[in-house]
Amino acid sequence: MPATEPATAETAAPSASSTRSVSRRGLFGALAGAAGGAAVTAAGFAIAGGAGRAGAEPVAETIHGSERIPCHGAHQAGITTAHTAHVSYLALDLLPDADHDGILRMLRLLSGDVEALTAGTAPLADVEPELAELPARLTVTVGFGRELVRRVDPAAVPAWLGPLPKFSRDRLDEAYSGGDLLLVIAADDPVTIAHAARFLVKDVRPFAKPRWRQDGFARARGTESGGRTMRNLMGQVDGTVNPKPASSDFSGLVWLGADAGWLRNGSALVLRRIRMELDTWDRVDRVGREFAMGRTLREGAPLTGKKEHDEPDFAARDSLGFTVISKDAHIARAHSTDPGERIYRRAVNYDDGLEQGLLFACYQRDPLAQFVPIQRRLDEADLMNEWVTHIGSAVFAIPPGWRAGGRLGETLVA
Amino acid sequence: MPATEPATAETAAPSASSTRSVSRRGLFGALAGAAGGAAVTAAGFAIAGGAGRAGAEPVAETIHGSERIPCHGAHQAGITTAHTAHVSYLALDLLPDADHDGILRMLRLLSGDVEALTAGTAPLADVEPELAELPARLTVTVGFGRELVRRVDPAAVPAWLGPLPKFSRDRLDEAYSGGDLLLVIAADDPVTIAHAARFLVKDVRPFAKPRWRQDGFARARGTESGGRTMRNLMGQVDGTVNPKPASSDFSGLVWLGADAGWLRNGSALVLRRIRMELDTWDRVDRVGREFAMGRTLREGAPLTGKKEHDEPDFAARDSLGFTVISKDAHIARAHSTDPGERIYRRAVNYDDGLEQGLLFACYQRDPLAQFVPIQRRLDEADLMNEWVTHIGSAVFAIPPGWRAGGRLGETLVA
Ligand code: HEM
Ligand code: HEM
Repeated sequence: MPATEPATAETAAPSASSTRSVSRRGLFGALAGAAGGAAVTAAGFAIAGGAGRAGAEPVAETIHGSERIPCHGAHQAGITTAHTAHVSYLALDLLPDADHDGILRMLRLLSGDVEALTAGTAPLADVEPELAELPARLTVTVGFGRELVRRVDPAAVPAWLGPLPKFSRDRLDEAYSGGDLLLVIAADDPVTIAHAARFLVKDVRPFAKPRWRQDGFARARGTESGGRTMRNLMGQVDGTVNPKPASSDFSGLVWLGADAGWLRNGSALVLRRIRMELDTWDRVDRVGREFAMGRTLREGAPLTGKKEHDEPDFAARDSLGFTVISKDAHIARAHSTDPGERIYRRAVNYDDGLEQGLLFACYQRDPLAQFVPIQRRLDEADLMNEWVTHIGSAVFAIPPGWRAGGRLGETLVA
Repeated sequence: MPATEPATAETAAPSASSTRSVSRRGLFGALAGAAGGAAVTAAGFAIAGGAGRAGAEPVAETIHGSERIPCHGAHQAGITTAHTAHVSYLALDLLPDADHDGILRMLRLLSGDVEALTAGTAPLADVEPELAELPARLTVTVGFGRELVRRVDPAAVPAWLGPLPKFSRDRLDEAYSGGDLLLVIAADDPVTIAHAARFLVKDVRPFAKPRWRQDGFARARGTESGGRTMRNLMGQVDGTVNPKPASSDFSGLVWLGADAGWLRNGSALVLRRIRMELDTWDRVDRVGREFAMGRTLREGAPLTGKKEHDEPDFAARDSLGFTVISKDAHIARAHSTDPGERIYRRAVNYDDGLEQGLLFACYQRDPLAQFVPIQRRLDEADLMNEWVTHIGSAVFAIPPGWRAGGRLGETLVA
């Protein structure tokens, strides 16, 4: 049962959204109704006089702050569920005295908080309940670092849970690496994220203290039609070739199986903070940029095709006998001929004012068998290497989902 | 001619927006047309089955990434124009050798860049033109610090342009204070802002280098109906009592007059970074919080009223003879009995992961006659002081707007 298709009544939280005309020049009012758990959306018509309208007010607006994504299911929400505009990664370190019982208490608190916040209901202890009322598709995905699992049960630590092998080009900064507990807080609204992040950190403070936080973003909701592949800050269409959650092989790549014990239906997350060296990238022309990637900038099409989703032809050669897509182009190096080696990518941009880059996240069953061989190939010879530097790295076990009445991490900590 | 009402044909850029149904379950397709410069928006109807829908896809979506706010006008855009979801303040320091001619060249470049970016057209030198295509109501408001004006013409420096007098509770950090040139970059989309910020910094690099950047946000567009007063991260409704741009006294408070020389139709901006001491604030109950502000949390109504826009009655007393709104409540201390002392506030939230607070910005004719007396009263005895700390401060002269064919700052630098 994938998280996107909750099958039981109690896990089904209908999303609410409504369209309202908020223009003074609106010709047609808004109409919205809801019945029997179904959200009915309706629309406002408005005409804005071109010359007289300076964009001061929206014309007809879809209001979606109350949309919810259920947190319950076989898998945690936020992995295959909707891409949201903002995603913040927040890592914490366990306090020295947080033992099995402390971790259990912490996860109990977290489960209730996540249930409340994602439903748009303020948790009991929330002193700013008004800030919790608009979940805006909030999801909170929780990950466990090696140390957390070790404290509960050293035998339960999977081989891949810990720092990745070092890559030759790594320039890792502790300030963006590691962590015992991860909260991936995603929503379309930055106020929702700020409030959820603060509330959650406060609530787990007796057990863990913040280590780092990394804020990512893609296009705001409504800036362009949903379903478009995002562009990263190098201007590239980023995310085209990616296993589809609905495909038959997805489960075998991303969700751990029956042999994984407590991690069954869970996953493994690799997060890399990758700085873009935009000052030197600026000096590269479009031909050079497309050559380094193996895809066009405008369409994101492979250099052997026309459209974004055309299959790249890595063997095609030009009149001089060179492959059209260089052997060292990013997509040639990153491409897996072994279908079992693939990863499910969920990247967002970051911009901390001093530098810009990619918060590269990927989910898989086993980072050592999936992320690592790909990254080895890239580390060795990716034309893009001149303009990207990995400066942060972390690996987390993502426990399976839970149901109402259950608890986050219940398969590990009881 | 206020910037919100462009009167000439060449300054009028109609905004474009469209509503599209992107749901697989959509019953009714989308319809959008534009004719004669007027943006016609239409609507999609969709019904989402409650139980089957996990929020994975938006139902009916207003697409507004191509909306533009004209940058030309008597005043610069971004001051009284639409509130956008994101606002970044970026300060730069002039390089030692940036003289009158350098500043002129820099402003020429900036004018062209702002014209192009706000129109959704990539500037000539833009190597990521695809990132410039969705302005999402982008505005770039430019401010001059004391040093910039001094280098051009020492006689043109207004008395108020420079560091503010020190307040007893100030804990200012140079990392968030001062600056010779300010770019206020506002839009509904964080990718648009990241791209504009980087492009502008790159283009002015021969003349100035970045000093600080502070990123602010309010609710994302579409999270709630437009026109709602924002909530800050203390959960308060923030921005209620504020001069209205359409009111008859606005101009005299905010726009400099004929006696201001080059600053006629310009303004003065005060930016304060104010940290919220949320850890101690958390311990205050709702009664205490409302008492400190003088307004309710839920409605933002004065304690003497019921609705947000009810007039506070500062004289009303309770049965014990105390004023209902404490003399030291924030709104009592901040309230100006002298109508000429008022300021036009445009605050946004900030959250840098370590701390949260308010990027408090206000526009006025003269900070020494408007911001300073208010802040003196607050500094002296505002019940809120226990939970807020001013850690950054900057003052900028905001030159008037310009028209197509003209140039930013042309009244100062020719
Ligand atoms: C800042 C660093 C990076 C940038 C800017 C970047 C950008 C891109 C772009 C534009 C594409 C082509 C479109 C697409 O299929 O998404 C792509 C493909 C891909 N990237 Fe990256 N990438 C980066 C780092 C990485 C890393 C660290 C990995 C994994 C180790 C990775 C794995 C992949 C894979 C598997 C593909 C699809 C290859 C195929 O066509 O089979 N990328 N990347
Ligand atoms: C983090 C710091 C601050 C917070 C959280 C805050 C919050 C608020 C809130 C919630 C209101 C009531 C609603 C409204 O009218 O907007 C208010 C009113 C006001 N604030 Fe602040 N404020 C802060 C700092 C300042 C500063 C530094 C100034 C100027 C020196 C200022 C000037 C005002 C004014 C003029 C009013 C309206 C007073 C009236 O009713 O006439 N505030 N503020």
